[in-house]
Amino acid sequence: MTIRVGILGYGNLGRGVECALKQNPDMELAAVFTRRDPQSVKILTEGVRVYHADEAEKMADQIDVMILCGGSATDLPVQTPHFAKYFNVVDSFDTHAKIPEHFQAVDEAAKEGGHVAMISVGWDPGMFSVNRLYAECVLPEGSNYTFWGKGVSQGHSDAIRRVKGVKDARQYTIPVEAALEAVRSGSNPELTTREKHTRECFVVAEEGADLARIEQEIKTMPNYFADYDTTVHFITEEELQRDHAGIPHGGFVIRSGKTGWEKEHNHVIEYSLKLDSNPEFTSSILVAYARAAVRMAAEGQKGCKTVFDVAPAYLSPKTGEELRKEML
Amino acid sequence: MTIRVGILGYGNLGRGVECALKQNPDMELAAVFTRRDPQSVKILTEGVRVYHADEAEKMADQIDVMILCGGSATDLPVQTPHFAKYFNVVDSFDTHAKIPEHFQAVDEAAKEGGHVAMISVGWDPGMFSVNRLYAECVLPEGSNYTFWGKGVSQGHSDAIRRVKGVKDARQYTIPVEAALEAVRSGSNPELTTREKHTRECFVVAEEGADLARIEQEIKTMPNYFADYDTTVHFITEEELQRDHAGIPHGGFVIRSGKTGWEKEHNHVIEYSLKLDSNPEFTSSILVAYARAAVRMAAEGQKGCKTVFDVAPAYLSPKTGEELRKEML
Repeated sequence: MTIRVGILGYGNLGRGVECALKQNPDMELAAVFTRRDPQSVKILTEGVRVYHADEAEKMADQIDVMILCGGSATDLPVQTPHFAKYFNVVDSFDTHAKIPEHFQAVDEAAKEGGHVAMISVGWDPGMFSVNRLYAECVLPEGSNYTFWGKGVSQGHSDAIRRVKGVKDARQYTIPVEAALEAVRSGSNPELTTREKHTRECFVVAEEGADLARIEQEIKTMPNYFADYDTTVHFITEEELQRDHAGIPHGGFVIRSGKTGWEKEHNHVIEYSLKLDSNPEFTSSILVAYARAAVRMAAEGQKGCKTVFDVAPAYLSPKTGEELRKEML
Repeated sequence: MTIRVGILGYGNLGRGVECALKQNPDMELAAVFTRRDPQSVKILTEGVRVYHADEAEKMADQIDVMILCGGSATDLPVQTPHFAKYFNVVDSFDTHAKIPEHFQAVDEAAKEGGHVAMISVGWDPGMFSVNRLYAECVLPEGSNYTFWGKGVSQGHSDAIRRVKGVKDARQYTIPVEAALEAVRSGSNPELTTREKHTRECFVVAEEGADLARIEQEIKTMPNYFADYDTTVHFITEEELQRDHAGIPHGGFVIRSGKTGWEKEHNHVIEYSLKLDSNPEFTSSILVAYARAAVRMAAEGQKGCKTVFDVAPAYLSPKTGEELRKEML
């Protein structure tokens, strides 16, 4: 039986989920829900309707799992507990420090509704977390290192746009190659923030703006840039559109650790991603975990789950026999 | 409560399990079982006894999980179904083609005994399989590539030792850098056996042996070497001991795949291992899955499981709260 999927929120992430569903024949897009005027939202899939978000609850019997594509700052803390009462849900809540309280709120709602709610699904949190966990369990005596990039940070790009005289901007987070090599060597280095990543900014200034002041304000901005080696390039609007329209990202999770009676052997485990489209890759992960949510719910499971709670087999449309024969 | 672990078979793998247990304070070595004379087996852990394998069944109430450290060719097909009747067990059965029949036999025995039996645990099958599965589920439109090495292949080293005039030998499997780069570029190349790996052999010949004939016999050996570019170096016994005593290994699992409505975006997921000691790393994985086996059994689960069936959280001594707070 085809899994019927709803999408709540149709931005980059929602559109990515729609594209990912096209690649998974055991699943289908049932409906898209938006807080905007549904008439104003044009989707890619023919024959599927767009509804106002307020209509969703009435359609609980037509949707096996709802993928929540809102933002972590204000949308998901409200939406995920709300919709977990009516649906199996999946979200990409990525404010690491607030995961425990989000889990608590969602867990109560999902148990009340008798549903499975999968939170913090994506690549970090998500695939990176899973890899940190596997690596730590296999090599208890060692250290985990996470590097991000090269990729666009939306939060840092927004921060630059708030500087007076800036019209538009794009910020890339770049891992420092020397730091990566030191970690891969197994030397277990202690690395400062500055040693791990650099930040490169492409800025379109307003006409007549004081470029030196803009550059200075960016480089000294606390939390965002002050602790990093930051480069600022001023470019034209056309150059920004032409060369920086994509949303690439990626990163590395590396663990080095020791085994042996006297810790005489060293091992390095490395997981890396190189992504042309950050939102489409995240969406593809959401869809795989949506399949898992429906299956786990069908087995009678209830409550809030994270990627740590999902056995890999639940993510695949293949049977256990097929997986053991083809993939093990 | 500390998890009491038994080791059956005390070779490189069994000794590796013993070392790994030292790094996991929630687990302890309860006993070692051997088919040799127990008096002849000296282990590293003080205060732990070595018993004959025939004594094991009588000690079922003293052991929470038995880690089976025999070989896949003849030991495990008999041992795993046998001991799954009496214990929760973990094995590293790695004959890929025979996994389905091994699963079947072990599943029946484990269900009969009311235990969890975890088979084919290690890095391939094992961690590599899990990574192939995650990557395929996230990027359904793509290709998986597995490369092995640089590392020692015991099977190929043994094959060389069977050549007339060879006293000792060590064979390294080496991934071809150009093939790795082609895969990482996302070009989805079709690669022949020869294009993926080379084989490098270090051979100690008997005095007066015909070196040209030995080299020729190695390079043309069907299945083992004929389909590869193989290099043969003749070295002295001292050089073999000095430079090739270790058992390093490693490898790469890479998936490249596409997303987007018109498949316009490319992504590369890469998992790699660089291991000083193949058996100790495998043992460390066995120990993490032994913890999972005990927990799953405590929840009432029964039967044969593989790495695909184990949610990552079961592998960790940390609680769900700790994992969400520290690792997600």
